[in-house]
Amino acid sequence: MLWVELLIFGLISKNIMAFDSNLKIGVLGGGQLGRMMIQSAIDFNLDIHVLDPDPNAPCKCIATSFETGSLTDYERVMAFGQDKDLLTIEIENVNTQALSELEKQGKKVFPQPRVIELIQNKLHQKKFYAANGIPTAEFQEVSGAAEVAQKKDFLPFVNKLATGGYDGRGVQVIRTEDALGKAFDAPGFVEKLVDFDKELAVIVARNEAGQVQTFPTVEMVFHPEHNLVEYLFSPASISPEIEDQAQQLAKELIEKLDMVGLLAIEMFLTKEGQLLVNEIAPRTHNSGHQTIEGNVTSQFEQHLRAILNWPLGNTDTLIPSAMVNLLGEDGYSGEARYEGMEQVLAKNGVHVHLYGKKLTKPFRKMGHITVANHNIDQLKQTVNFVKSTLKVKA
Amino acid sequence: MLWVELLIFGLISKNIMAFDSNLKIGVLGGGQLGRMMIQSAIDFNLDIHVLDPDPNAPCKCIATSFETGSLTDYERVMAFGQDKDLLTIEIENVNTQALSELEKQGKKVFPQPRVIELIQNKLHQKKFYAANGIPTAEFQEVSGAAEVAQKKDFLPFVNKLATGGYDGRGVQVIRTEDALGKAFDAPGFVEKLVDFDKELAVIVARNEAGQVQTFPTVEMVFHPEHNLVEYLFSPASISPEIEDQAQQLAKELIEKLDMVGLLAIEMFLTKEGQLLVNEIAPRTHNSGHQTIEGNVTSQFEQHLRAILNWPLGNTDTLIPSAMVNLLGEDGYSGEARYEGMEQVLAKNGVHVHLYGKKLTKPFRKMGHITVANHNIDQLKQTVNFVKSTLKVKA
Repeated sequence: MLWVELLIFGLISKNIMAFDSNLKIGVLGGGQLGRMMIQSAIDFNLDIHVLDPDPNAPCKCIATSFETGSLTDYERVMAFGQDKDLLTIEIENVNTQALSELEKQGKKVFPQPRVIELIQNKLHQKKFYAANGIPTAEFQEVSGAAEVAQKKDFLPFVNKLATGGYDGRGVQVIRTEDALGKAFDAPGFVEKLVDFDKELAVIVARNEAGQVQTFPTVEMVFHPEHNLVEYLFSPASISPEIEDQAQQLAKELIEKLDMVGLLAIEMFLTKEGQLLVNEIAPRTHNSGHQTIEGNVTSQFEQHLRAILNWPLGNTDTLIPSAMVNLLGEDGYSGEARYEGMEQVLAKNGVHVHLYGKKLTKPFRKMGHITVANHNIDQLKQTVNFVKSTLKVKA
Repeated sequence: MLWVELLIFGLISKNIMAFDSNLKIGVLGGGQLGRMMIQSAIDFNLDIHVLDPDPNAPCKCIATSFETGSLTDYERVMAFGQDKDLLTIEIENVNTQALSELEKQGKKVFPQPRVIELIQNKLHQKKFYAANGIPTAEFQEVSGAAEVAQKKDFLPFVNKLATGGYDGRGVQVIRTEDALGKAFDAPGFVEKLVDFDKELAVIVARNEAGQVQTFPTVEMVFHPEHNLVEYLFSPASISPEIEDQAQQLAKELIEKLDMVGLLAIEMFLTKEGQLLVNEIAPRTHNSGHQTIEGNVTSQFEQHLRAILNWPLGNTDTLIPSAMVNLLGEDGYSGEARYEGMEQVLAKNGVHVHLYGKKLTKPFRKMGHITVANHNIDQLKQTVNFVKSTLKVKA
């Protein structure tokens, strides 16, 4: 009868978990993503304990407990995890060896350490897509600058480092032979520059019970120089066929990764109408901030539902929305002040999210503004007003 | 030229205030209303300091600082207010003498102490309505039980204490001569029992610049058999004429009070189609919890906008919503557990708000559930499901 018991155990263990707000949840990383996760966790009486190297990290004042320490140090992460029931992340750059060890000790760790490890390495990500039939831009592995220099025939391309890149670092476009000299001298790959029509993103969640739920596809606009999301529209203005393909691709990816948690997938829509996966992140993401106001369930609540094995929330769009990152103005460093905020607050459908950072510096992510409006023209007008009016200075 | 300078000074001082998240804001009261205010304040980097007599009050873990102490003690409130720039309340039962003194010292105190003082006394409230032409149920002042006993001709009526009532205490219905003996033996009044069609509520905000903004009128839905408020529905199902009258009445009231802050107004709609003001509260209110999900701006953000003299937010309904109070189940006291939460979380449009109270007792307000749905039939089905499924036990 052992197989019956195992079957029953399997069904129970995979079932939706009983609601329990006495779990001790640890989060590696105390930045704005953690901060917004805590804002959502308050509604469920969940205790959130945070580890971050920055003693003034955005989560500091609102976490149940806040510890300062390195996220990449094995001993530090092990010590932090010891008294937790469930561990999660808000940044990928963490010590996955420690997380694997904590997982072996019987703690829940979502996303799973093997998934974080795969995603930490952009080359491994690309190889995973290739091995699993996930469409992605053509690429060639390189060991360093010397090899990149020989890729003249592959131009124009993007040169990416396998590891260490974050928020636009470790990625550069090389268009001409003259520019080959600036290639990174470290292992990575070159990837055909995609002549895309749009950049899209889909966030998908999966819980231990195997339930999978995507958010509607959104459309991103990047800053031409700084390679950061500048603003975003939700839902994307794409055909129902492309929407359906993007949603299916997201579900396929999270299932092939056999991942529990939230996965953000950035995609290119090529001028030929093909979807190519660009990069993925196993956590809440800048491309999902507008879900707080624009969708039935926010990405932050969905992340909690996924890792706690609760039923996933409905993700329907309530109202069209746009998200503008509020970056520190170039040329200003010091105590932040928000010029133009009064005018922005007077506009209909403006939602302010500041990240609790006292000090600004050029291009630092200080907050975001979500604009929501059923009238798309008004929405775009308000976005332009926000972008031209609100400045973070010192 | 002095009058010109005074005029200019008046205009400037009444103008919208510059956005400044370095203000030190003190809140008297650290319950669920304060907790939800803090959740909103996090988005604006606002530091919220809380005073509450309960060392385990809902705000404890998320306030910038939390002090334990009596809200009705002059010295304690004075000490708390000393280093604050702006003071506000989340409960009316506070020492207004201390708040007046702090106001005289130049601190901003919203709502103003004189308004809190007026509203603390239900008899003064009634007299204010009568003096200002605000429609309200007919009433007669009484000094105690002996006087109530002589009001046979006024039956049936509601006997209310002038002071000390809170959350249903200090209020009782007296329908027959036999019941006259149970009258309160303290100063107050008797008020004609209103044969109403609906109970409605309007929340209105006003800032120092004089901007006034109401939320759409909401409706308390009564159980068809038990004559108890079952849940709250937003927006109310009333004619456009009544909606307009209710909104006008709310604006008139906050202006006649010359109040800055948020004012919640409970009204009866009589069977003859007349609106009568029942009670008012100068703060965020249980009848506005559904604004978090159902309206463009929540009552908690609106309260902050009003007291900080920022532009008031748009209050349009985004989606019809219902709010169910989550009360401790009768017969259970001790560490709270939320039976049926998994099933409730699986329903579309369910939003959970727990108040961080570890211990439950019969009828204690432990949280609320907002249900949002464009389909009114589905919305009501989900409300019924929540009410029959989710139980707070120990």
